[in-house]
Formats: sequence, C-alpha cells, structure tokens
Amino acid sequence: MKLAFGIDIGGTNTRVGVVNRDGRILGHSSFNTADFFDGGLYADQLATVIKSLKKEVEESYGADASLEWVGVGSGAPNANYWTGAIEEPPNLNFKGNTPLAAMLRERLGMDRVVLTNDANAAAIGEKIFGGAKEYTDFIMITLGTGLGSGVYVDNKMVYGHTGCAGEVGHMTFDPGGRFCGYGRRGSLENYCSATGIRRTFFAKIAEMGIPTMLDEKPINAVTSKEIVEIAEKGDEVAKATIEETGERLGQALASVALVTSPAAFFLFGGPVQAGDILLDPIRNAFEEHMIPIYKGRTEIIESQLPMGEAAILGAAALVFAEVE
Amino acid sequence: MKLAFGIDIGGTNTRVGVVNRDGRILGHSSFNTADFFDGGLYADQLATVIKSLKKEVEESYGADASLEWVGVGSGAPNANYWTGAIEEPPNLNFKGNTPLAAMLRERLGMDRVVLTNDANAAAIGEKIFGGAKEYTDFIMITLGTGLGSGVYVDNKMVYGHTGCAGEVGHMTFDPGGRFCGYGRRGSLENYCSATGIRRTFFAKIAEMGIPTMLDEKPINAVTSKEIVEIAEKGDEVAKATIEETGERLGQALASVALVTSPAAFFLFGGPVQAGDILLDPIRNAFEEHMIPIYKGRTEIIESQLPMGEAAILGAAALVFAEVE
Repeated sequence: MKLAFGIDIGGTNTRVGVVNRDGRILGHSSFNTADFFDGGLYADQLATVIKSLKKEVEESYGADASLEWVGVGSGAPNANYWTGAIEEPPNLNFKGNTPLAAMLRERLGMDRVVLTNDANAAAIGEKIFGGAKEYTDFIMITLGTGLGSGVYVDNKMVYGHTGCAGEVGHMTFDPGGRFCGYGRRGSLENYCSATGIRRTFFAKIAEMGIPTMLDEKPINAVTSKEIVEIAEKGDEVAKATIEETGERLGQALASVALVTSPAAFFLFGGPVQAGDILLDPIRNAFEEHMIPIYKGRTEIIESQLPMGEAAILGAAALVFAEVE
Repeated sequence: MKLAFGIDIGGTNTRVGVVNRDGRILGHSSFNTADFFDGGLYADQLATVIKSLKKEVEESYGADASLEWVGVGSGAPNANYWTGAIEEPPNLNFKGNTPLAAMLRERLGMDRVVLTNDANAAAIGEKIFGGAKEYTDFIMITLGTGLGSGVYVDNKMVYGHTGCAGEVGHMTFDPGGRFCGYGRRGSLENYCSATGIRRTFFAKIAEMGIPTMLDEKPINAVTSKEIVEIAEKGDEVAKATIEETGERLGQALASVALVTSPAAFFLFGGPVQAGDILLDPIRNAFEEHMIPIYKGRTEIIESQLPMGEAAILGAAALVFAEVE
C-alpha cells in the first residue's frame, strides 16, 4: 500500500496525516505552529511528529503489511512550489525564508518532499478527492487565521509568474481600514477569516451596544468558533457579525470572479460551519455586485472535503502526482 | 496577399482596419458608435463601411494583385466569443443581445466572422504583434470610455466559465461610491478610464477650489485628452487628477495581480499618453499595496502597439489564427 504524508501548516496549528492512494487518512497528529519562532526548531518538531506517526502506522498495520512511503507533501502559507521554501509568511511566528523542503529531506532522510501554498493544496484536494472533480475553472477559498485561495483555470492550478498566484486574502478591501501584518491596511483577510470575524464581532459590540452571550468571557478567550455557535443560537450581535462577514466576502468574490470567470467558488474552513447564515449573505452580495453577463452563472458552495482534511489530502495528492 | 478586417468597437468610435499577415494596416476607416441605438442599424452601417473599405483597397492595389479576404475579426465590449453576440453592453447605446457575427455574415456574404471582447482582442494583438511576445502570463488593461482587460495565463487567453473572463473594470473599487451603468456603484472604471479621469477632474475642481486652464470651456466640452494635455503643461488641478487616477489604478492592479500573478500589465489607451505623470503613481501605489513575495516582480508598461491599432490588430489576429 502506497502512503504519503500530507501536512497542513496553518498559522495556529500544524496537522500531519498519513494518506493512502484512495484519499483515506490512516493516521494523523497535530501540534501548535504558533509556539515556534524559529524555522529550524519548527522543522525539528515536524520531523519528530512525522517519524512518530510513521512508527505508529507501521505498528498498527504489522510487519507483514507492505507499506511504501512515497514522500511528504506540505501546504503552508506563502510556500513557493519552485523553491520549496516558506517566504516571508505574515501569519507565522518564524519570519524570513525557511527552506522547509530541504530541512525535512535532511531530517527525515526522505528524497521526495514537496511544498506548496496551503490554499493551493486545498484546491488540489478539492479537485482530486472533493467536490471539484468535474470543474475545470474554479477557485478555492480557505477561511482560517487568514484567507487563502487556489485558482484553477482550464483544468490547471495557476502558479503565475512568481509561483505564488492566488493570494486574494491580501487584496485591498478597504484602503485606510483595519491594520494588517506588513504595515498595510484594509486587506480582505482582516475582514473575512476566523480572525476577521473576531474583529468584526468587537466592532459590532461597539456599534450595537447591546449584550451578547459571550459577555462573561475574557476578550482574549473569544473565538470565531464560539461567535458562529452563538449566532446559530440567535445572538443578535453574532448574527450581525456573520451577516456582515458574508456581505463583505460576497462583494470581494464578485471582484475576483471578474478576473478568471470561474464556474464555482468552494469555501472551506471553520467559519463555513455557520452554513446558510454565512452563505446566504455571500451569495446575495455576490449577485448584487455582479454584472449582467455573469449573473446567476457562478456557484458558491461548501467544500466537499471533511473539515481539517482538505489541505492534508491536497498536499498528499501532490506527492502521488509526482510519482505517477 | 491574405487580408483580414480587424474591427475595434468602442463606446464612442468604431474603427475598421484592413490588416495583412505581418500586422500591417493597409487601410482604415471609422464612424461614431454612439450614434446607434439599434443593433441592426449599427450592423448595416458597419457592413457598409467594410464593403467600401474593401473596394478602396482593391482599387488601390489594382486588378492584378491577388488579394485573399480571409474574414472579419471584431473586438467589442461584452462580446462573447462562443455565441458571437454582444451581450448587455453597458457602454453602448444599443442594449440587450446583438448577434453581430451572424448579422455581419448575412450582410457581407462572408462565412468567417469572429467576435471577442475588445480588451481580449487587444491582449491578443499585444501578444502577437506587440510587446507581450515573450510573456506567458500578462494582463492587458485598456483605458477608454470604460476600463477593459484581457488575461493571459500559461500562454493562453483566459475565457473562463462564461466565455467573458477579464472584466476587471467592473470590480467594486469603492462601495457606495460613484454611480455606474447597471444601477451599481463604485466600479473601478468609474475612476480609472477616460470617463473616470473626467469625473475626477470635476471632483478635484470641487476639492481644490483653484482655477484651471479649462475654465473657459463648457462643462460638456471637457475631454480626458485635454485634461492630460494641461496636466503636462503644469495645470495643478489636472496634475492632481492624473496622479489620483494613477494611485487608484495602482491599488486596483495590485489586487488583480494577487489572483493570477502576471509578469506584467500592459496599459493601452488615450490616458496612457500622459506617460510618467500617470505611470509613476500607478507603479508606486502598486508596490505600496503589494505583499512582500510579489514586490518588484511585476512590470507595469505601456503597450507597444500603435495607439488605436491594438484592438484592430488583435481582432485580425484572431481571424488569421482561425484559418491556420
């Protein structure tokens, strides 16, 4: 049985999975990305987790199982497929350039280590194992600590001139608006992401001036997950937060659609669990901002991949593609 | 000698050229698009001009010249390559759907009539006859009555799901801002186009409250061309107008670049004649709004095609491509 490691490096957590050729995850583990302020120490920890997971899977399948480890695929923010490095990531605590593919090759003694943008990996996962199998032109949107994207045109992932196409989370949504990393202001991901939802929640408390179900919590303990949960229970401030997030994302996706005219946007990530209270305002704002020739011709749908697995499956799919 | 008609349909003027295989324009003519409120009457006029130009070229080359007329290519706003129709154009006076390819086939008795978006045609012209010959990933931006765009990814024109990709002029630049056609507000082309420059000029008169070199002119006689001319002569209001136009366009192109990561933007159209007083603020704002991994890696350059010929050459190139 051929197995690949699929690694999803997020600003908050790193998830490692062992994936077979059918897209089934046979084992997984995770640790806190934000604890690491040095790329080398991070690579040490990642290698340790990978080795331990390998041993675990080998033991559980027994000595008779013929396991073939084909390589390691990884999706990370600001990862460059061509160089195998994570370059100037705004949402990670280790800065500068981290040649993670080379670091892992050395620490693991494995030749095949492939790196790509985390959202590109998610898009490849959606295309190969998820809901995008029949789509030649689509865009994957991942809502996590930031907002990531992966763009398919004419049945191929777009890497572009830099090798890092699909960074729509950094589009200027509101010049002079919320502060970002980079010293820039008003990027889309400061409004439409898990982090953005949290910021909008506090803006709504200011604006509406009414109690919320989270009033007893310390400010730093409030999460986007809880905001989604209380919105579902009818909390007015949280409902207004999710609705405004949807309106903003719908407007922004309408602008993105005008570049490559995709047949669909697939939405992935924690906030998408909110379902229709998020998706309805996205769809309405999208159509409202769309020009007649595009109206009603772009689907906005939830990812068909299980939560937390899109990037893992996509990263593993990259590895399988390399050996076939 | 093989000859094609290349037609550039703009909101203001329609230009018709006879183009040979080397990209040389052997004859041309033009008329006012804005005079026509009916697609059928417009097609009548266009067919008349084409026939007259054909006769003119035949007479000038004499009966002995073996001229082979291979077809008609046309670039028009909101043209759909697949249907051969102009669909719901916001900047033309004839509304709804105009099946122009079929109308011209009938009126001219020619089989090969091809229609595409005017900015896509310009992009094909830049790729085949202009400055983009060596570029696999670039975006053409045309500044006219509106703002058009044509997107190349991996050496191919992007048509997308609708067949009408590359409509970045309709991106929402300032929600709640200037009114557009469509009943929408704040589209990029209301700020960055010949029309947008005119609107910004009046906003600057309001804001700055100082005299301009055009103060003797009736409001409806003020053109973007004159605004560019007086800016070059040092008019403060006009200079501020061109600078703000550049800043806005630079910011918007930075957002567009994040989708497909092009190596270059080629800028085409009347306002580009302003040169560095427009291009410098575009480049500065572009870099200012760009994320580190993209910084300094995208050129913003003037089209290498002669003014007024980009769309004609591109439209003609489409025809030659069809027969080869």
